[in-house]
Amino acid sequence: MIITVTLNAALDITYAMTSLDLGDTNRVGRVHERAGGKGLNVARVLHTLGEPVLACGLLGGRAGETVRADLAATGIGVRFTPIGGESRRTVALAEQDRTTLLNEPGPHVTPDEWHTFLADFGTLLTTSGADVVVLSGSLPPGVPADAYRTLTTACRRTGTSVILDADGEPLRHGLAGQPDIVKPNTAELARVALTPETARRAGAAAVVLSRGHEGLLALTPDGAWTATPPAVSGNPTGAGDALVAALARGLLHGWSWPDRLRHGAALSAAAVLAEVAGAVDPAAYRALLPQVRLQPL
Amino acid sequence: MIITVTLNAALDITYAMTSLDLGDTNRVGRVHERAGGKGLNVARVLHTLGEPVLACGLLGGRAGETVRADLAATGIGVRFTPIGGESRRTVALAEQDRTTLLNEPGPHVTPDEWHTFLADFGTLLTTSGADVVVLSGSLPPGVPADAYRTLTTACRRTGTSVILDADGEPLRHGLAGQPDIVKPNTAELARVALTPETARRAGAAAVVLSRGHEGLLALTPDGAWTATPPAVSGNPTGAGDALVAALARGLLHGWSWPDRLRHGAALSAAAVLAEVAGAVDPAAYRALLPQVRLQPL
Repeated sequence: MIITVTLNAALDITYAMTSLDLGDTNRVGRVHERAGGKGLNVARVLHTLGEPVLACGLLGGRAGETVRADLAATGIGVRFTPIGGESRRTVALAEQDRTTLLNEPGPHVTPDEWHTFLADFGTLLTTSGADVVVLSGSLPPGVPADAYRTLTTACRRTGTSVILDADGEPLRHGLAGQPDIVKPNTAELARVALTPETARRAGAAAVVLSRGHEGLLALTPDGAWTATPPAVSGNPTGAGDALVAALARGLLHGWSWPDRLRHGAALSAAAVLAEVAGAVDPAAYRALLPQVRLQPL
Repeated sequence: MIITVTLNAALDITYAMTSLDLGDTNRVGRVHERAGGKGLNVARVLHTLGEPVLACGLLGGRAGETVRADLAATGIGVRFTPIGGESRRTVALAEQDRTTLLNEPGPHVTPDEWHTFLADFGTLLTTSGADVVVLSGSLPPGVPADAYRTLTTACRRTGTSVILDADGEPLRHGLAGQPDIVKPNTAELARVALTPETARRAGAAAVVLSRGHEGLLALTPDGAWTATPPAVSGNPTGAGDALVAALARGLLHGWSWPDRLRHGAALSAAAVLAEVAGAVDPAAYRALLPQVRLQPL
């Protein structure tokens, strides 16, 4: 079983617009709503590929209800801890050739709510038979910056593997928890002033760096590789989440590192081809897999 | 009793932002939500001035629940007809010197829901002792374009006065119902290819044209006037709704046309001074009233 943790889940709203006139009134053509947040994208990809997955985290308010209903409709198992605040929305203004994102800050989480989540998470770890936990995305206000370190420590106690995909302070603190894999992109690693080598020294057993079109660079206990998918063009949002999903599959099934990286590069390229984050076409994934170039460093 | 009708009520969301980077990810600083739609702005102003007012119309979904809760918190009486669709949201991107508005299209209203509203409205007219009905704003998809004509005809049967504030086809059809007052602005009148004179010929007993800084121009059964408030600067959104609120007060209390126009010009200038649409400071209104210049045409 794979558990994805989404502490700052979002209701992703997309406004399809012909053009955006600044300082004026704009009519929105089509409105599309869906459950968002990086951990939920990972859960969607895993569910599409038939992997057993449970989504947990924090949800509150009317946006939270919509997220919960959307996930229920997909058939993904959910174990969210309710909070009093309103889960955040993101609004994407999708013009023909340009998308502008607006991210709300997220609800304030009280200390009591955070401790309830920790208790719920501990119960879930022991009752669900979790093999892999995926920690993804930002933390809402009120959740301690070392949240991912705390959760990773809890996982180590039950022998559950951990993949960390975070940014800024939550990434820096999370590394100290010694996750099995950390998956930053180039900008995220730069923001915490680390390299793949120093990120390993900071605590991660393996580092998988996603570098956009240039593919992956991985430093692992079994060796170092780059993995490059064929050039694809499309929507890069969610490509990192698809890579995390592939790494979670690899941990769950005990794949070798070369296999994990081949699947990771192919699945994230398939995500670029898909219209929205969290979606992949399994046929595209299968077709891309033999085209990934793997090179030892 | 004044009844305001808001068929396309909205949840108005304001995002306070330092700047908007197009094609990029933007962090929203502060999120403010409130019940919106022109009819609700009119109801808020009337409630602030202590006038008896009931708000009716159509509300649905989670946005509709938030609108209902916000109105309940203000103490305004509500008699909304529930619909299955989701009431629209509007998003205002408020930068320092520029505000960009995004308007969702509104829910689809079924024929059954529309007929339920007509029945509810008929009951409200006879049971509430309504003296004045205010018909404001756009129609959601599915509501017939001649909705305001139908509602005006129902009001005539019970001897209730009607003020119409609409745009496009709903305005054109509404005039044929012979409302007591129609209140277009310059752009709205131009869009239906009418002048104040031809708008009267099309059915309105009186036409009050709002012309921004230039004040009001009114053609009425008792004469024609312009009314000019002192120059004020601020947020013009909601100034037209405040004017409608003043005209409703005038009808309710049987004020002369010169008094209605003096109050209308002062109240809409006070609305410009207020931070948000639907708000007025009664002290500013009282201070502006003697400064309005009224001139017969």
